[in-house]
Amino acid sequence: MRKPRVVVLGAGYGGLITVTRLQKLIGVSEAEITLVNKNNYHYETTWLHEASAGTLHHDRARYPIREVINTSRIHFMKDTVVAIDKQAKVVTLEKGQVEYDYLVISLGSHPETFGIKGLKEYAFGITSIDSARQLREHIEYQFATYNMEKDKKVERLAIIVGGAGFTGIEFLGELGNRIPKLCKEYDIDFQKVRMICVEAAPTALPGFDPGLVNYAVKYLQKKGVEFRIGTAIKECIKDGIIVSKDNRMETIKAGTVVWAAGVRGNSVVEEAGFENIRGRVKVDDYLRAPGHEDVFVIGDCSLIINEETNRPYPPTAQIAMQQGEVCAKNLQAAISGSKKMISFTPVMKGSVASLGDHDAVGFVFGKKFVGSKASFMKKMIDNRALYMIGGPSLVMKKGKFNFL
Amino acid sequence: MRKPRVVVLGAGYGGLITVTRLQKLIGVSEAEITLVNKNNYHYETTWLHEASAGTLHHDRARYPIREVINTSRIHFMKDTVVAIDKQAKVVTLEKGQVEYDYLVISLGSHPETFGIKGLKEYAFGITSIDSARQLREHIEYQFATYNMEKDKKVERLAIIVGGAGFTGIEFLGELGNRIPKLCKEYDIDFQKVRMICVEAAPTALPGFDPGLVNYAVKYLQKKGVEFRIGTAIKECIKDGIIVSKDNRMETIKAGTVVWAAGVRGNSVVEEAGFENIRGRVKVDDYLRAPGHEDVFVIGDCSLIINEETNRPYPPTAQIAMQQGEVCAKNLQAAISGSKKMISFTPVMKGSVASLGDHDAVGFVFGKKFVGSKASFMKKMIDNRALYMIGGPSLVMKKGKFNFL
Repeated sequence: MRKPRVVVLGAGYGGLITVTRLQKLIGVSEAEITLVNKNNYHYETTWLHEASAGTLHHDRARYPIREVINTSRIHFMKDTVVAIDKQAKVVTLEKGQVEYDYLVISLGSHPETFGIKGLKEYAFGITSIDSARQLREHIEYQFATYNMEKDKKVERLAIIVGGAGFTGIEFLGELGNRIPKLCKEYDIDFQKVRMICVEAAPTALPGFDPGLVNYAVKYLQKKGVEFRIGTAIKECIKDGIIVSKDNRMETIKAGTVVWAAGVRGNSVVEEAGFENIRGRVKVDDYLRAPGHEDVFVIGDCSLIINEETNRPYPPTAQIAMQQGEVCAKNLQAAISGSKKMISFTPVMKGSVASLGDHDAVGFVFGKKFVGSKASFMKKMIDNRALYMIGGPSLVMKKGKFNFL
Repeated sequence: MRKPRVVVLGAGYGGLITVTRLQKLIGVSEAEITLVNKNNYHYETTWLHEASAGTLHHDRARYPIREVINTSRIHFMKDTVVAIDKQAKVVTLEKGQVEYDYLVISLGSHPETFGIKGLKEYAFGITSIDSARQLREHIEYQFATYNMEKDKKVERLAIIVGGAGFTGIEFLGELGNRIPKLCKEYDIDFQKVRMICVEAAPTALPGFDPGLVNYAVKYLQKKGVEFRIGTAIKECIKDGIIVSKDNRMETIKAGTVVWAAGVRGNSVVEEAGFENIRGRVKVDDYLRAPGHEDVFVIGDCSLIINEETNRPYPPTAQIAMQQGEVCAKNLQAAISGSKKMISFTPVMKGSVASLGDHDAVGFVFGKKFVGSKASFMKKMIDNRALYMIGGPSLVMKKGKFNFL
């Protein structure tokens, strides 16, 4: 009898937890396991705001996939997923194809631009190692160019961040540390630089406790960030954005525009014809796509409703990792036939938003924290993600220990 | 009786040697000395190829002027020279003006573009700390962008250097060290990168011994540099250059074009109405502008004919510093009235072109050198320039000691 083939698409938090658990749960004679990822490395999506600002080198935010998987058990393919044929059970890749009996879709998210004109062309994103390096270098180039021009354009030094959610706020926190250093490096007066956060919602960090939000906003304002809350970006142009507040339009000029205001699921999911809401599949209790018992969807491509609030859980690394654990067990159950699948319930342990090197705001197990305590906990959360996938040696290599 | 006012324009090699000598030669009661420079720092023009390539931080190639002058003797003005009125004996600055009895023009050079279309708009230069930082960041941004584009443009990674003279060759030497590191940093295959040197003259490093030229070219070719010798740049365009060889035109695409093919004197000299050849004043034996006994011209703005070859000496730091020594003595003679001026004769001690970190070619006191010996001598020459202006403490701070 042929061994069932398990194919895992994507080596993000969800995908890597799945395969590192599978390689222990499933014997070599029970199944073939393949992991497909477009890079030969995993990156810490939740650390990209640091690499983008230039406060942490991007190599600190990634590690080779082969270092954390058992390559004698997992067949790793460095390739990009192009399409999924769920009838034929075949995944088309850029350089070939791969057949599956069980599929795990853990492809992560794409930016959601809500159809705002010009964002795709002119705004930078905080979405990958590639994008982080580009954004970092773009900002540096703007600063390096300022003194070269006879007709100095102060707007070249302005940085607009679209979105005051988690990523936007954390990126601004890093900029607060980084910009004074860039000013020194390029002989620029800090007073000339603007950091502007534009958010359409009526508050920064929606979903956070108002006291924590207030702390974060005040802290960032002290570091020079201007907030435009309740202000919608109508269009992104070559040298800035057009915003609207109370039906009045205004152009804000800036050398750098960063879009950090939300994500959607992967377009491959939509194109494959799974029932989805903006690229996210509302999975069943066992994390399977409705009507497809052989397809598991986890991480940012999955959608789970929080029954207390009747709204979807936000796409987080925390949930993706929890899903990976359950997904591996349910695959074991499906393959063995003798075990029962377990249903998935997210456990919201907490959420901490960093405000730069030594400050943060958040709640953990229901308790609120700010300042260096919160910052410590944020670093522990970051280290835990490394530990879960790569054990103590990965924590030693890539972990964060710069506590105050 | 009013003390005579000595005004020195520019704190390059010539200007700084002049004032550091003057502050010792001339008593506080004998003259007022003013130094005008557009930055509050001096930079090592001959090290800019390293800062531009990113192999040496630009702060290593500059130091504060106040660190090397006696500020109780020299009045330093951070300002930019706009015009010289030699009849009224007034120098107009951006923020004011300054009157002189004796003037030293040591304003350095401007790039010579020979009227080639598009160079000013699209080519980068290796002319100042500002330009070096911008060029370094531009190249990094090209590399950072490559992997971000779906339709990857390999020409983005190409770097064209116009000119195989001293600066062009030394910059290519640094790129030879730097590009492999950038490839690693940005996950780029080194084979995709092109470094192309275009030179209109029939040889690289004109004026150098053919054996040394051959060594340099072979060495750089091994590091991946392509040479297009005897090839003239006809036009610089947004994404490359148009060249002509044997009357055939060709477009070479590149994300970066660097113009390093020659300099001319400062335009202020031309506009002031001094007799000049491309911004350079053919000075008398005592380094004075013909017909202007109160105006000394040294460094790249001066022109001295080598009587052996009947051609001008090239504009070098070596000659500028020798001129500074003589200029200070002749100012002392003019002010005291009791001393005789001395005539200036350049002493060509040698010339070494670096080929990156640990190789070089050159001749010193008539003897040819290549390899690590030449590289050692190059570093000694660099350290000597620091020593001449700032003494041993400046050598300790900024010197080069990374010998093999």
